Amino acid sequence: MRSVQVPLGERSYTITVGNGLIAKLGDHCRRLKLGERCVVITDTNVGPRFANDAVKALKMAGFVPSVVTVPAGETAKSFKVVADCYDQLAMKRLERKSFVVALGGGVVGDLAGFVAATYLRGIPFVQVPTTLLAQVDSSVGGKVGVNLKAGKNLVGAFHQPRAVLCDLDTLASLPEREFRAGFGEIIKYGVIRDNELFKRLEKEIDKLLARDAAALTNVIARCCTIKAEVVAADETESGLRASLNFGHTLGHAIEVVSGYGEYLHGEAISIGQVAAARLSARLLGFPEKDADRVRDLFAKAGLPVTMKIVPKKREALFDAMRLDKKVAGGELKFVLVKALGDVVWGQRVPDADINAVLAGITA
Amino acid sequence: MRSVQVPLGERSYTITVGNGLIAKLGDHCRRLKLGERCVVITDTNVGPRFANDAVKALKMAGFVPSVVTVPAGETAKSFKVVADCYDQLAMKRLERKSFVVALGGGVVGDLAGFVAATYLRGIPFVQVPTTLLAQVDSSVGGKVGVNLKAGKNLVGAFHQPRAVLCDLDTLASLPEREFRAGFGEIIKYGVIRDNELFKRLEKEIDKLLARDAAALTNVIARCCTIKAEVVAADETESGLRASLNFGHTLGHAIEVVSGYGEYLHGEAISIGQVAAARLSARLLGFPEKDADRVRDLFAKAGLPVTMKIVPKKREALFDAMRLDKKVAGGELKFVLVKALGDVVWGQRVPDADINAVLAGITA
Repeated sequence: MRSVQVPLGERSYTITVGNGLIAKLGDHCRRLKLGERCVVITDTNVGPRFANDAVKALKMAGFVPSVVTVPAGETAKSFKVVADCYDQLAMKRLERKSFVVALGGGVVGDLAGFVAATYLRGIPFVQVPTTLLAQVDSSVGGKVGVNLKAGKNLVGAFHQPRAVLCDLDTLASLPEREFRAGFGEIIKYGVIRDNELFKRLEKEIDKLLARDAAALTNVIARCCTIKAEVVAADETESGLRASLNFGHTLGHAIEVVSGYGEYLHGEAISIGQVAAARLSARLLGFPEKDADRVRDLFAKAGLPVTMKIVPKKREALFDAMRLDKKVAGGELKFVLVKALGDVVWGQRVPDADINAVLAGITA
Repeated sequence: MRSVQVPLGERSYTITVGNGLIAKLGDHCRRLKLGERCVVITDTNVGPRFANDAVKALKMAGFVPSVVTVPAGETAKSFKVVADCYDQLAMKRLERKSFVVALGGGVVGDLAGFVAATYLRGIPFVQVPTTLLAQVDSSVGGKVGVNLKAGKNLVGAFHQPRAVLCDLDTLASLPEREFRAGFGEIIKYGVIRDNELFKRLEKEIDKLLARDAAALTNVIARCCTIKAEVVAADETESGLRASLNFGHTLGHAIEVVSGYGEYLHGEAISIGQVAAARLSARLLGFPEKDADRVRDLFAKAGLPVTMKIVPKKREALFDAMRLDKKVAGGELKFVLVKALGDVVWGQRVPDADINAVLAGITA
């Protein structure tokens, strides 16, 4: 078991990585001095597997839990589902000290976190991420949100969880494709901030894909540590935190244009990062051979590094990128990499360069 | 013209009270170093009167404003309207430095503030309150929110405006009933925190009801100063700020049970405060003659101090009070007054006392 601190003053919290953590959920919550009532928000995939264990653990620690189950998949991050959750919380008479447990992947965490951020102007919540992607990324840092038709996560808040429990046992039942998608974010941490991690991933990728517990614990804890450092330095994304968006401008646009669901988030940002590495080579002198290594590592992890795109869909990609939050003064800005482990953000990129790179990665 | 500072560190802002302020909206926004694009959110009552002036002022200062008009009335604080606003903001391509102007009464301020608090995880907003109630209360302090069927303001956020402009000219066209409702909050400031203000109101109530500009400017500025002090001491309502809820536990319940709209907010909390003053006399030794003065001042302001209620509706009132945010451990808590200008909050009140007082104020 490993613990990582997220140092945010009075909003500080601990990420715990290890096995058998859902059974200890109640004990962890008890230490946080929360109210008795709580609602576990989960989805139709994860609920049947783990909700009973979570409820049992909470009850044993003296809490009064209820369960709200939302549909599995990105479509749950909608206002209809948010409104349903509010109604359930009101029906269960949750009060200001009551809390929400987000039990599921990134979608559940973002949705449940947004509900907790806005119900009664904000009540506590605890993250129990059950996918590799959510464990290394979305459950840490307090970004919560839901989607609009116009784009992903266009509505949201900053609301830090009170604790994050990454239970490795939940990864055992994760479908292969979804497990691999987690490496979309894991490899990112190496590229943007930790050349040693990148090299370790190149070496250990097969072991990790085989879900070796010790290797996974180390890598998940390392990723959470990097994210915690970045979030602590820049909680509300006015600077450094933007570096976490490496590959995300194009990645989000791919998700929007293909209609959430065709690509998993980790797959979309894999393509986005390969493109951003190529842009970096064109504009910042990032070595082409390192851009190749980035592409090769994503490919080894079983993630897509090219995409099919008809010319008229390219216009839609640009439109979606322009609506993304990472725009200022109407001009597209990218996170670019100078060397492995070293990125710069807020880089204005001419449309011509984007087009050239898109031509290279589209099949 | 009077200025009041709300000292909240990097979230500090200025409230300006005076005539002709909408014409100066653009200048005020320019000083805040906001992005070019902005959306003025207003309603079908206020828009036709003042939206053109606001847009003109913004354009003259170099901004690129659009107008979003929502239906007038409390029903606008719904998720449907919130979702419509998000879509409009996305269509107008508002970015992180873009801003929202709330031009209207408390409903528009709460709605537009919630939209600004959550769009792109929070963009700046400026309050231009056009009712007396909004000028002295809801536009200051950053509480924003929308209603659920289960209760008022059950969903919301803390999101401070970047500036508040209280233009007295907007009060000229305010219907008499709505103008008087403003005194529901104004008198409250006297009761909870300023005996001198209470006495001044007793003396000047006729002049104020005749909308005397000098008297109004002084009183509005004094109320904003009190609210600013309270908010600065306790931004997120963990203590002192709760005192602003004097009369609101019953007041909100009256609004819920009668179905928003029968009573204006200022009317509902007038009844709520008269009841809270009586509860204070029963439980804290607040002099009955001062409770009479409280009732008489509200009555002089033309606000209701009793209500009709059939016995079975009383149960609904209790239910609504228990769902209100001001509950902890399932027990109702009230703000009570010890002496005029001096309140205590978090007071547990037995149901029997509430019933006795309700019997006294129901006709």
